[in-house]
Amino acid sequence: MSSQYETRLDKLVQYLEARQIELAIINSPKNVYYYTGFNSEPHERFMALIIDLRKVKKFLFVPALDLEEAEKSSSVETIIPISDDLNPYQVLKNTVEEGVKSIGLETKNISLFQQEQIKHFFGDFHYQNIGEFISSERMKKSRDECAKVQTAVYAIEKVLSEGIKRFQTGMSELELTAELEFLMRKFGAEGPSFSTIVLSGSKSSLPHGRPDQKKIQHGEFLLIDMGVLLDGYCSDITRTFVVGEETDEQRRIYNIVRESVQAGIHAVRAGVPAATVDLASRNVIKENGYGQYFNNRVGHGLGMEVHEEPSIHEKNEMLLEPGYLFTIEPGIYIPGFGGVRIEENVYINQQGEAEVLTSYPTELTSID
Amino acid sequence: MSSQYETRLDKLVQYLEARQIELAIINSPKNVYYYTGFNSEPHERFMALIIDLRKVKKFLFVPALDLEEAEKSSSVETIIPISDDLNPYQVLKNTVEEGVKSIGLETKNISLFQQEQIKHFFGDFHYQNIGEFISSERMKKSRDECAKVQTAVYAIEKVLSEGIKRFQTGMSELELTAELEFLMRKFGAEGPSFSTIVLSGSKSSLPHGRPDQKKIQHGEFLLIDMGVLLDGYCSDITRTFVVGEETDEQRRIYNIVRESVQAGIHAVRAGVPAATVDLASRNVIKENGYGQYFNNRVGHGLGMEVHEEPSIHEKNEMLLEPGYLFTIEPGIYIPGFGGVRIEENVYINQQGEAEVLTSYPTELTSID
Repeated sequence: MSSQYETRLDKLVQYLEARQIELAIINSPKNVYYYTGFNSEPHERFMALIIDLRKVKKFLFVPALDLEEAEKSSSVETIIPISDDLNPYQVLKNTVEEGVKSIGLETKNISLFQQEQIKHFFGDFHYQNIGEFISSERMKKSRDECAKVQTAVYAIEKVLSEGIKRFQTGMSELELTAELEFLMRKFGAEGPSFSTIVLSGSKSSLPHGRPDQKKIQHGEFLLIDMGVLLDGYCSDITRTFVVGEETDEQRRIYNIVRESVQAGIHAVRAGVPAATVDLASRNVIKENGYGQYFNNRVGHGLGMEVHEEPSIHEKNEMLLEPGYLFTIEPGIYIPGFGGVRIEENVYINQQGEAEVLTSYPTELTSID
Repeated sequence: MSSQYETRLDKLVQYLEARQIELAIINSPKNVYYYTGFNSEPHERFMALIIDLRKVKKFLFVPALDLEEAEKSSSVETIIPISDDLNPYQVLKNTVEEGVKSIGLETKNISLFQQEQIKHFFGDFHYQNIGEFISSERMKKSRDECAKVQTAVYAIEKVLSEGIKRFQTGMSELELTAELEFLMRKFGAEGPSFSTIVLSGSKSSLPHGRPDQKKIQHGEFLLIDMGVLLDGYCSDITRTFVVGEETDEQRRIYNIVRESVQAGIHAVRAGVPAATVDLASRNVIKENGYGQYFNNRVGHGLGMEVHEEPSIHEKNEMLLEPGYLFTIEPGIYIPGFGGVRIEENVYINQQGEAEVLTSYPTELTSID
């Protein structure tokens, strides 16, 4: 179908052939999507793109119940449905040529159990990890892919603008979450790209806390971290508000985080190590004396998945390249007091410059 | 904290000691929840319950940013936070006693990459799969756990009752999905237990199809498959409606599926193989000549996860036991025409009898 998938597959086949891999098994759902156009979550069922390099044959193995959907969207034409009563590795063995000795696997996505199954049906084999190559390919996002993330960013910013108008002091975190997720659907999203985070008061210091029946009260921080999945791509944005007028301490912390996120963005360009971006952002927080309250990395890649490569952390020496798309999301989290996080999404264009995809204002905003 | 976790851990330690396992690594998030009370999704970060059997020491390894939450809810007291710039396997190596030779792993949840990392830091080791044991323990749900699923079922049935009142012919699948998910939050759910399925017309024949901008029209089937996550447990229910008055063919297909789900429920009791339930349900569809339009298993276990053991399929000879909780969800899916699925949730009580947790009516209902 689309030549985009063929181009990607051609590069993969070249890579595999250069490494004398005879059979490739690609079973991460998003990698299957990347190479075939079939976007599906098989849960515990077996789904994989199989490339038999000896005859350069490609097969898409899907759960039987997904056959009709796969036929509609897969660019790989030979689709093998597997019903629930069959062993998928037996079907795999029956499908490909005999005598496989060298297999390419995504080692981060193949379980020990799956390796045992492959051994059982194929006998001893050598494997090479092809996951890093695929991940490095996926990092280099085309302008089209960036445009899809941009659309998902526009959608979530519209949700935030509309949603915050519906806020009333005293409503619960879950009620506000419900409003926000309603708006995501209303504005055409397939759904949230991850479990929406709405945290208030001291709960806002929990980077992965969950919204609950807690009422959002006057004087508290309100941290909203959310994104949508739209046309197969994700957005991920965080803004922190103050309910009512802020205190001096709230304003001070907020402005340090704001300065930190801006410093991170200014450090982004092709050719610099990912660590540089983390450190630029982190140092602002450290220099202001809040280093102990910021214990996680500054950002993560964003695309078909809400967490993907590259990881923007202080020891990642990987050089940034055109096409990389990631979040910058420093924060200060003070247990018992509360937390502030501001999160932007950044793309490195073909000229190697940073483009900020998020545009929702970052000035401290009081709501009530 | 709660003795529930201690009891579960005691049984696990007994199992591990009997197999002379020196170190157990439990890294499936829901298994960590089952044994510690800490319910978290670490995404690509490392989180694991570690049991060093040589001194019967227990450690909960969590991403640094989850430390505060873990301290609040984990019954395992020694919590090791891992910041993003550390290699978690190095930290693991530094934490446990030297000289581990026998490790217990969840082979379905340990990736080949993780195995390589463990080898790198610990040298060669033997492993045993402890995942099956944990899974068999989790299948035997207590009355308390059943009550949590029941609460999640009540919530989703309330969502369906209210949501269907908001239906209007001509609204899109996504608009109805937005209404339903809004109600989930409103009624106190943490969120959907899986991506809500709202499919109409010929799309209803796609067992894993996704709601989109398609308008729901007069004369069509409307299939709604959804559940909520509430207090750590899931529900999962499907009902199929007809928009306007049904045709004879729609009524015939619907009533076959309804008879099929009832036949499945009647077959449930402790001591019978899972396959018996599948076949009881499947045979109704086959005998009525629609066998080719039902290609997936009849059901799946339900609990902390929306898909867990046991799998109710026609070749699963596993005997059902008290405490098992699963779905029964036969369907007829005719490409181009449409599909019908009805899904109930069933628990096998301590007397070995089936209790149906779902109570939303299954009679064919016209809506408009």
